[in-house]
Amino acid sequence: MTNGFSFRILQRDGLARRGELTTPHGIVQTPVFMPVGTRGAVKAITQRDLEDLGAEMVLANTYHLYLRPGDGLVARAGGLHRFMAWKRPILTDSGGYQIFSLAATARIEDEGAEFRSHLDGSLHLLTPERAVDIQAQLGSDIAMVLDECVGPESRTSDPRQAMLRSIRWARRSRTRLQQMRDPAGRDAAVTITNPGQAQFGIIQGGTDLALRTESVQATVEMGFEAYAIGGLSVGEPVDVMYAVTGHTAAELPDDRPRYLMGTGMPDDLIECVARGVDMFDCVLPTRNARNGQLLTRFGPLAIKNARFAEDLSPPDPDCGCYTCRHFSRAYLRHLFLSGEMTAATLNTLHNLYFYLDTMRRIREAIGFGSFEKFRQEFQRTFSRRPQL
Amino acid sequence: MTNGFSFRILQRDGLARRGELTTPHGIVQTPVFMPVGTRGAVKAITQRDLEDLGAEMVLANTYHLYLRPGDGLVARAGGLHRFMAWKRPILTDSGGYQIFSLAATARIEDEGAEFRSHLDGSLHLLTPERAVDIQAQLGSDIAMVLDECVGPESRTSDPRQAMLRSIRWARRSRTRLQQMRDPAGRDAAVTITNPGQAQFGIIQGGTDLALRTESVQATVEMGFEAYAIGGLSVGEPVDVMYAVTGHTAAELPDDRPRYLMGTGMPDDLIECVARGVDMFDCVLPTRNARNGQLLTRFGPLAIKNARFAEDLSPPDPDCGCYTCRHFSRAYLRHLFLSGEMTAATLNTLHNLYFYLDTMRRIREAIGFGSFEKFRQEFQRTFSRRPQL
Repeated sequence: MTNGFSFRILQRDGLARRGELTTPHGIVQTPVFMPVGTRGAVKAITQRDLEDLGAEMVLANTYHLYLRPGDGLVARAGGLHRFMAWKRPILTDSGGYQIFSLAATARIEDEGAEFRSHLDGSLHLLTPERAVDIQAQLGSDIAMVLDECVGPESRTSDPRQAMLRSIRWARRSRTRLQQMRDPAGRDAAVTITNPGQAQFGIIQGGTDLALRTESVQATVEMGFEAYAIGGLSVGEPVDVMYAVTGHTAAELPDDRPRYLMGTGMPDDLIECVARGVDMFDCVLPTRNARNGQLLTRFGPLAIKNARFAEDLSPPDPDCGCYTCRHFSRAYLRHLFLSGEMTAATLNTLHNLYFYLDTMRRIREAIGFGSFEKFRQEFQRTFSRRPQL
Repeated sequence: MTNGFSFRILQRDGLARRGELTTPHGIVQTPVFMPVGTRGAVKAITQRDLEDLGAEMVLANTYHLYLRPGDGLVARAGGLHRFMAWKRPILTDSGGYQIFSLAATARIEDEGAEFRSHLDGSLHLLTPERAVDIQAQLGSDIAMVLDECVGPESRTSDPRQAMLRSIRWARRSRTRLQQMRDPAGRDAAVTITNPGQAQFGIIQGGTDLALRTESVQATVEMGFEAYAIGGLSVGEPVDVMYAVTGHTAAELPDDRPRYLMGTGMPDDLIECVARGVDMFDCVLPTRNARNGQLLTRFGPLAIKNARFAEDLSPPDPDCGCYTCRHFSRAYLRHLFLSGEMTAATLNTLHNLYFYLDTMRRIREAIGFGSFEKFRQEFQRTFSRRPQL
């Protein structure tokens, strides 16, 4: 598609696809789950741990890195890969979601989003062009366009107007990137640290399928390297999320990876792979780990529970992670109750291993043509409610 | 000396000794620095990280583990080595220091120390015998006797009376351990998880050299496997600490390892090795790491300092640790200012590497007969005040 970026589907099983995503920093097996490294680090673990877990790609947040330490410093360091010492692919979001969720938004107009930093209250204007520039300086392998995010409970924005604005912003984002790809059109103030960076468009439209279709048509026309489904997992019922994902994925180009942003629980990943999604990211495994929730094939395990006080078995006896191979529930409960940082580390290692292993098993099942069987078996044993 | 425990000196250089300490869980090269794993984990890192750093022995705190999760649970798990998945040697303190520093002490009498838990205010009586029993259940390789700690600013205890009480307690501790070593004398309520556990006596006497001599004579007479110097690094001037250490070490048996408790800065380790000390522990490298202070051969480096904002060089360009080989001061500053747990992990990896590497260099210098030269060079370049 572009210099250094391509996608090929190796196997199909129903709507599920097993593929290979080639980026300037290496190949990623899809379906893929990307651990979230908001500020250039996945919370409570090191990049060495991530490599050991077999993570092939991570997500970093443009909003956070723009505010601190600043994309200028990251560019001077040679880009985010060098700054955070992560050699494999990185995807950066555009900052849009954080502006609408974290910052005090002062004003959203067609020009862009004016917001106050959650760190120091300083005023910033993020335009679609600026979001492209910042990500060019960060040098991620995949950059996302700035979009206007509207939750199901939004009172400030009309979903159709937000979707249409996202389309206008996507067009400006694409234009900006294309200018950058032309050496003659470059802005000397922007340091491009990864010339092979791909750009994904984002489909919006809330839970209205007709709006989603309209968004797909207008966005795909712009010819992005690939497309993401945004604006889901923001509070809508899970069956609605599945329905919108299935509807949207089916309308996206078959030969491009499809990225469902910010989702989800382990069963969500499987259900959305079954609907043709190839890429995922979510803070859930890392955030829940820090809160003492271990995710297993049977469901979540709240490690502080008194019933684990004397339990000398590992969190999941069949799990191959470092934590499960060495430590008992009683030990992990002790560390968590003691407020030891090592508890967050060990729980994070387990949860990320579980997510990444689930993706490996998904890919394997697709390869064997047994994905539907795997899916049924997983849904049969997995419960969202703590069971253990 | 006892089943599984022995010490032999391989080389001498002045008063400095390079030796090998054999324990039921393997051999330790001395002089050794033991990272502190208070509650059965070294803060912010994993046991895998510790192994990778080359740590040969860790210290765990009896007071903390007794209160939570309880030595009974640890014994049921098979001992502390299995509970915390650490296969190499462990030394446990007796809990005395924490009772005098952390807990609300209700009453100290010859029987023992009655104190209220800092966790829930519950009342506990720690006798010398109980401290032996708890450590027998923990199953450390080296157990310490209960002693009465008196700081230089103590108003509640007379140093001589405290020293004499420590001697009486040491005698009862030794008797209790000897009963345990006799199968006929065992208390069925105590599970001995490490039959080869050694027991160290502790020399007290504050900064009064005559009291120290008196303590040495009475304690050595009891025939412990080895001896520690306690009650230092509690606020006295550093030259007093060196003087008391030198005086006491010289009076301790030459053929036994000498352990200086709770010390110190890197230059302290070298100065005390020069006075015949073989073993050290200190929370300083781990605690300072979490506070953003990186220790280097030139002195401490406060990573939050604005001058590091754009500094793309590693904390110490000559350091071989994971952190220095991969990350810049600017990145570490960013993580620290962002409150990322990974900052604590990376700083801890560096500081412990620096301590352990300093010990390796000390041992090497003793082996080469060039310890005095090493010491002078270190003191010439190292400053306790932040320099960078």
